[in-house]
Amino acid sequence: MLNITDPAEARKIIRADKYDKQTAGIAGKYVQGNLCILPSKYALDFAAFCQKNPKPCPLIGFGIKGDPYLKDLGDIDIRTDVPRYKIWQNGKVVDEPTNIKKYWNDDLVTFVLGCSMSFELPLMEAGIEMQHIKNNTTVPMYKTNIDCEPAGPFKGKLVVSMRPLNAEDTIKAIQISSRFPAVHGAPVHLGDPAQIGIKDIMKPEYGDAPRVIKNNEIPVFWACGVTPQSVVENCKPDFCITHKPGAMLITDKLNSSLAAIN
Amino acid sequence: MLNITDPAEARKIIRADKYDKQTAGIAGKYVQGNLCILPSKYALDFAAFCQKNPKPCPLIGFGIKGDPYLKDLGDIDIRTDVPRYKIWQNGKVVDEPTNIKKYWNDDLVTFVLGCSMSFELPLMEAGIEMQHIKNNTTVPMYKTNIDCEPAGPFKGKLVVSMRPLNAEDTIKAIQISSRFPAVHGAPVHLGDPAQIGIKDIMKPEYGDAPRVIKNNEIPVFWACGVTPQSVVENCKPDFCITHKPGAMLITDKLNSSLAAIN
Repeated sequence: MLNITDPAEARKIIRADKYDKQTAGIAGKYVQGNLCILPSKYALDFAAFCQKNPKPCPLIGFGIKGDPYLKDLGDIDIRTDVPRYKIWQNGKVVDEPTNIKKYWNDDLVTFVLGCSMSFELPLMEAGIEMQHIKNNTTVPMYKTNIDCEPAGPFKGKLVVSMRPLNAEDTIKAIQISSRFPAVHGAPVHLGDPAQIGIKDIMKPEYGDAPRVIKNNEIPVFWACGVTPQSVVENCKPDFCITHKPGAMLITDKLNSSLAAIN
Repeated sequence: MLNITDPAEARKIIRADKYDKQTAGIAGKYVQGNLCILPSKYALDFAAFCQKNPKPCPLIGFGIKGDPYLKDLGDIDIRTDVPRYKIWQNGKVVDEPTNIKKYWNDDLVTFVLGCSMSFELPLMEAGIEMQHIKNNTTVPMYKTNIDCEPAGPFKGKLVVSMRPLNAEDTIKAIQISSRFPAVHGAPVHLGDPAQIGIKDIMKPEYGDAPRVIKNNEIPVFWACGVTPQSVVENCKPDFCITHKPGAMLITDKLNSSLAAIN
């Protein structure tokens, strides 16, 4: 991991193709974002999908057609500033480059979506220990039976992330994450996984399985930034660029600036 | 005023062209929205403008191109369900019809933006008296020297609404409105109007002048839903449809559903 606290410095290294891995913990006070770049013919419907599904798809950046710069998120060139990208054609990954200079064109529109890292830091600062962080694994993620609100061709099921917490920490976590509607906000469910269509809590569709859920722990479920990727896979646009999961865009926005209530 | 508490019933009367006036107080528990309908060539930039300026332009509804129905806000046909519209051509109002059936076409995209009515009700429920409501006048609104974040052709100054409150009510109003980021959220300023470029607090650009600001009162300023109309006037799109200020879209969404924290 890059041991860097300044987001611009981290991007400088990433821009030079000198780092292509996970960004968790890099410039930890700053917002990191999920990436989705689409041809303009899909862009309006995808924007509507994000507006209709703000919990899984909180839009924190919105590029102008053909413009690779995202000035309101920092000195960002989206063609180079993400460690590793995925190039999708008709719903299949065809390349995983460290920059997208040769794929960029004047018709592309960039979307940046918030991610749960922005509320995990305040949870940790409140003394809440999260199993996946303690074990240095990826948070477990599950496809639910909850339909997203469709928009044009974009439709699909909500994906959630799960953190097992004791009762006291569950209450605190609900309070704290509620203050961050721009990065998934309050949980969407807690307790019985079957109620949202999850058959086996020990077998997540994405990320790493939980090692254990203790008797005094409650599974707490948040809307997850994997939802839009899963939806884009469903919709199979002829062309699409995302980040490689975990290798996020590091912005100049402080996590604390996303709080509705500080 | 229509003395009706059910939003669908209110829309039925409006849909039949039987009511064309102010909607304040009608179906008061439900969200009312500002309207902006644009040809699709402007829609992506306007959506980006709203994303970049969530305090004045909180997007609560986003239609699909050519689709006049807004199912996620209720059984709504945007061609008929607003009491009175404004038809704009090149930045000038050319018609103020009670429905837009003859203006609707397959290329139009509908945007609905939250309005401060949604947080005024919880303010009143907390015992906060607002001068403009007590006097049955329109809240005073001012153009500030604060630039909105531009997006494509859309740019301009932030418009704010002002409510004079005593210190205790100012604190309570900040707490309560902070819970509603989807309808302008926390104030953008309080105290000295000159700091945000307002020359004479007794002479608002829109709405009615305050009758008095008492010695123990502080002017408290919120981002205002008039901002997008002012920006659309600047940008002068060849065609645009808005509501007539005050004659809003009444939705089926409860105001309380917009709270980030209940």
